[in-house]
Amino acid sequence: MRYICRMQLPSKLIEDAVDQMASLPGIGKRTALRLVLSLLKKDSKDVRRFAESFIKLKEDICECSICHNLSDSPTCSICSNPSRDESLVCVVEDIRDIMAIEATHQFRGRYHVLGGIISPIDGIGPADLHITSLIDRLKSGEIKEILLALSTTMEGETTAFYLYRKIADFDLKVTSIARGIGHGDELQYADELTLGKSIVNRVPYENSLNRS
Amino acid sequence: MRYICRMQLPSKLIEDAVDQMASLPGIGKRTALRLVLSLLKKDSKDVRRFAESFIKLKEDICECSICHNLSDSPTCSICSNPSRDESLVCVVEDIRDIMAIEATHQFRGRYHVLGGIISPIDGIGPADLHITSLIDRLKSGEIKEILLALSTTMEGETTAFYLYRKIADFDLKVTSIARGIGHGDELQYADELTLGKSIVNRVPYENSLNRS
Repeated sequence: MRYICRMQLPSKLIEDAVDQMASLPGIGKRTALRLVLSLLKKDSKDVRRFAESFIKLKEDICECSICHNLSDSPTCSICSNPSRDESLVCVVEDIRDIMAIEATHQFRGRYHVLGGIISPIDGIGPADLHITSLIDRLKSGEIKEILLALSTTMEGETTAFYLYRKIADFDLKVTSIARGIGHGDELQYADELTLGKSIVNRVPYENSLNRS
Repeated sequence: MRYICRMQLPSKLIEDAVDQMASLPGIGKRTALRLVLSLLKKDSKDVRRFAESFIKLKEDICECSICHNLSDSPTCSICSNPSRDESLVCVVEDIRDIMAIEATHQFRGRYHVLGGIISPIDGIGPADLHITSLIDRLKSGEIKEILLALSTTMEGETTAFYLYRKIADFDLKVTSIARGIGHGDELQYADELTLGKSIVNRVPYENSLNRS
């Protein structure tokens, strides 16, 4: 694969398209070229539809004014749904987390998207996240519980603790998603930290019976 | 990853963009979503430049009228280069093969891109490839050698043999790129067929000395 470093593309047009494709995360020049050549095999109409979907998305997408979820309208479909519980708000890093949680059909509250996670290495501090708007939502007094659903990484834990301290003055319950051995996981392959903590924080057996 | 099958996207616009991205080969819905979200983080101007590079490519790219290489102009930079040897033509499957060969700086002839390979399983027969135009080039009488540089797969060998029979009536030398153990490969990991053939088709030791 060594030749890729000095890959000479036969045309400036291909070079531009490959550079653009390779600007996406995780797409190298070689993959970009494969994708661009496959695009060239499509009809002009399909290529136009492909390209225009991104322009349209960028132009017309909104951020929900309440929770920062992405949406076609100023308020997202979850925040504008009256059957969702206003008093319970789940804090997530990213809209992909909302999709993952929605797919479980186990959560009937609302969300708050931070838009990232505290990560000094990447230069992301609390001011870069949607924390002020979360505090503003709390000030309305309607929220009774905040569920912190952040990754169990160092950055996730740091962000959760920062939020926990930040919202300590409000009269509300702060919960975290349960940590432990995943359903379908084998004990012998679990990491020590997770297994150790899941023993220390053991739960009544009855709890696992009424899980769906 | 199970939730992806019933992934509910928060917006029709995102759904369209993800579907378009996932129409590229090897890009699943999950990767497509990651790429689309990363596009959303770019400026409007950059998204427009991203999208328009593909429309421009599709509209303005030409196929070289001689060798079927992709090009900005009706004749590609290789066919229109007078210092390239007109009498030697290398037959390849795809323009990526041209790039790989050009990167070696070892070939000074011209090319002929078949645009595919005979593959009955994919419904690709000789009529789908640029074989007629190759025969037309041979009729001019300027070509003295055809170098078959096709993959060493079943389909590649079939295509090479088909071409060999097809051009047998012309007065020219038909060659194939050398097969054998690659430079830097360890013998013990070579497959039996390649190793066996490289013993049967052994070459004078001197040949390997003047390799650059």
